[in-house]
Amino acid sequence: MADIYIRGGWIITLDKERRIIKDGAVAIEDGVIIDVGKREELDKKHRFTSDIVLDVSRHIILPGLINTHVHMMQALLRGCANYVSLIDWLTKRIWPLQGNYTPNEAVVSAKLAIVEMIKSGTTTFLETGLVGRYGPDRIIEEAVKPSGVRAALARHVMDLTGYATQENVLHEGLIEDGDTSLKDTIRLYHKYHGWMNKLWIWFGPRTPGAVSTTLYREIAAKARELETGITMHLAEVREDVEYTLKNFGKKPVEFAHWLGLTGPKTVFVHVIWVTDEEIDILAKTKTNVSHNPCSNMKLGSGAARISDMLKRGVNVALGTDGGPSNDDYDLLREMKHAALLQPLRTLNPKSIRVEEIIEMATINAAKALGIDSITGSIEVGKRADIITIDYWQPHLKPLNNPLSHLVYSASGHDVRNVIVDGKLVMFERKVLTIDEEKLLNEVDKAAYTLYERAGICIEPDTVWRIM
Amino acid sequence: MADIYIRGGWIITLDKERRIIKDGAVAIEDGVIIDVGKREELDKKHRFTSDIVLDVSRHIILPGLINTHVHMMQALLRGCANYVSLIDWLTKRIWPLQGNYTPNEAVVSAKLAIVEMIKSGTTTFLETGLVGRYGPDRIIEEAVKPSGVRAALARHVMDLTGYATQENVLHEGLIEDGDTSLKDTIRLYHKYHGWMNKLWIWFGPRTPGAVSTTLYREIAAKARELETGITMHLAEVREDVEYTLKNFGKKPVEFAHWLGLTGPKTVFVHVIWVTDEEIDILAKTKTNVSHNPCSNMKLGSGAARISDMLKRGVNVALGTDGGPSNDDYDLLREMKHAALLQPLRTLNPKSIRVEEIIEMATINAAKALGIDSITGSIEVGKRADIITIDYWQPHLKPLNNPLSHLVYSASGHDVRNVIVDGKLVMFERKVLTIDEEKLLNEVDKAAYTLYERAGICIEPDTVWRIM
Repeated sequence: MADIYIRGGWIITLDKERRIIKDGAVAIEDGVIIDVGKREELDKKHRFTSDIVLDVSRHIILPGLINTHVHMMQALLRGCANYVSLIDWLTKRIWPLQGNYTPNEAVVSAKLAIVEMIKSGTTTFLETGLVGRYGPDRIIEEAVKPSGVRAALARHVMDLTGYATQENVLHEGLIEDGDTSLKDTIRLYHKYHGWMNKLWIWFGPRTPGAVSTTLYREIAAKARELETGITMHLAEVREDVEYTLKNFGKKPVEFAHWLGLTGPKTVFVHVIWVTDEEIDILAKTKTNVSHNPCSNMKLGSGAARISDMLKRGVNVALGTDGGPSNDDYDLLREMKHAALLQPLRTLNPKSIRVEEIIEMATINAAKALGIDSITGSIEVGKRADIITIDYWQPHLKPLNNPLSHLVYSASGHDVRNVIVDGKLVMFERKVLTIDEEKLLNEVDKAAYTLYERAGICIEPDTVWRIM
Repeated sequence: MADIYIRGGWIITLDKERRIIKDGAVAIEDGVIIDVGKREELDKKHRFTSDIVLDVSRHIILPGLINTHVHMMQALLRGCANYVSLIDWLTKRIWPLQGNYTPNEAVVSAKLAIVEMIKSGTTTFLETGLVGRYGPDRIIEEAVKPSGVRAALARHVMDLTGYATQENVLHEGLIEDGDTSLKDTIRLYHKYHGWMNKLWIWFGPRTPGAVSTTLYREIAAKARELETGITMHLAEVREDVEYTLKNFGKKPVEFAHWLGLTGPKTVFVHVIWVTDEEIDILAKTKTNVSHNPCSNMKLGSGAARISDMLKRGVNVALGTDGGPSNDDYDLLREMKHAALLQPLRTLNPKSIRVEEIIEMATINAAKALGIDSITGSIEVGKRADIITIDYWQPHLKPLNNPLSHLVYSASGHDVRNVIVDGKLVMFERKVLTIDEEKLLNEVDKAAYTLYERAGICIEPDTVWRIM
């Protein structure tokens, strides 16, 4: 007897055969997908015996989306850092704000990011870097666990204060020493890693300039020993290339590879300024790439060579990045940006297909997080991470090409239901795990307290006159 | 006594002083804005005396958006033309489909485009080119007029069959001779131009290759005589530059200027492959540009030099283009694409500000259409074209920077109410002028009949297996 039975329209399975089932249905029991197929046949078994029947024949059914690059601590910073390139963006806006967080505000920011992700169909995400100041345990206990979604949470590890050039130092509130940051990551690992098959602790070495080569090697060794992941920004701006070339005589991917950071459990983020040879290193070592087109465009970082990476066999996944670099956490919108960026970059509309984009937001991302045995597709035996998208709307009509419409026309608002691990987390756009109205009432207060403490972003950034 | 009184949150007026009014309000009477100001003060006059009070204190109030480049006849073609560059896109997909329309299907397509625009906050649009085959009178009577929105409708004028190169000829169903197409435009002009201050008939010369120089000059003269507008695609792809250079020894803007097509009542669309000198011609002649970033990216056409144009004084407005090149008609989403494209193109995040983007979707567009005396901003004396956007949502929080959130995080779904000419056209997301459910039921049938007649787009375009 199924717990939830979804009678849908088109099911985009992302299974190994990449089947699309018209008039399909899915049955879920004890958190697991137990049946996928034609609605007509599955109806016989499940229609009148299941606890909950979701009758969504005008919906597209997709695996829950997986966001491979999230800064939860930037949700409260939305709109606080326009018109600045990466290094100024970090050192003059983001780090001073992030360095002033209290754990209370950190929980509010985490909840805001998560509720936005749920409402736009994300069921799993990779947080790129928590530090002690934010209070990671409270974020996990009060924001992540109760939300119901899956999360791989990287904790920052660092022992230097610089970023790329020596002048650009971290805000003091974010500085930790190597011993503390490494040990706390391991502590969190032992406390939370693998919890309910929904929570994983990763290593998040800071970018070149904030970590010594010795510590990088320690991180690589420790992550391998604990069989967990590593994620870090790499080759996001040209300055990154200059830095590793000047200091180590190596290009960014060569540098990371030399330190032992490449491999199938690693997710490098952005990876814009790389050569063919570096792409080949990524492919050969099965290192994963998180592509964040919005952020790369907004900050003027550049256009990643995603179509080249896919051709050369690199596993590429999608990410939204954070509040002030996107400025949303909506992976469906990110899919469109990803689909548009490659044709522009190459002036070739054949450079990427919508199927590849959908894979980047689902099964490729599950692979990147090392959890494709439990999620990333709709197939029997996997945990039930499933979203339903209402296609009975003008902008998704006519329904001749649902994959195309998903990528080019849908957005997070079109997601109606979200199921994680067989449990409804959002039903008909109502989030069931977080009190959204209460949260929205807390957000502005928490944000303004933080802005005032940091002395940044207090006034709206506009050349127009507010009266 | 006001007909409608809007008690809002932030009012982005776009008036000459570009005021933003916190806790603002707007009063409307007989279709005209009669009062704009602080809610506290306006409440005294209008709160208890108005027919309708829209209590939307958690909304941002904006002038209705104006879409300066729409192909209504491509709404039914959504998803029918991926992975092709402009010339193949036109000749192998779009023109054969458009050349097979029946007037019935044309009405359905027009309604679909319009309902999508209303639902995403567009109150005025510029259609780029109707032809006789579509039945322009029926489109106007059955789709445009009843919808309640304002529209400038260009009718195509042409006397050649080629496009850029001689091999790429128009589909026979779309071919008209110069005399017929010019006369019918003038007929439509006399029948509809100026109707209720909501409908205008423009000249829509086809792109270089489909119009002789003699006819271009006739169009320019006639449009000037009738004091109406001209809109045409220009310099969209590099082939356009090659064509005018090879055949006339002139670059595209020089070519158009030489033909008398430049001027304040002209909207050139795309305008990607242009030189500084050509931008200066546009500025000097006060010619308007419609920027369509999504379409330009998807088709791999290129990145228009919008920040350079703004710097040199060109009036730039926004447009979505059509169903298979975007693939939505959502101008709020287009704003984000426009904001992201310039930083990427220049690798400089300072290249464009959100205020400029908002102007491109409102007041600049009203100027481009020559109707800025009646719409494009919220100020006393103008017709009431107003939309309200719900900011009480996770992705628009915290509300420290509403202009930034509008551009980077909002989308058409966030629009709750749409008022055109002082009348509610959408109330709390329900479109009041078009039966949306009935239309959605008609759309697939009309689309598939059209696809089968044209022999294109019958099967979903996917490499995955549909079962």
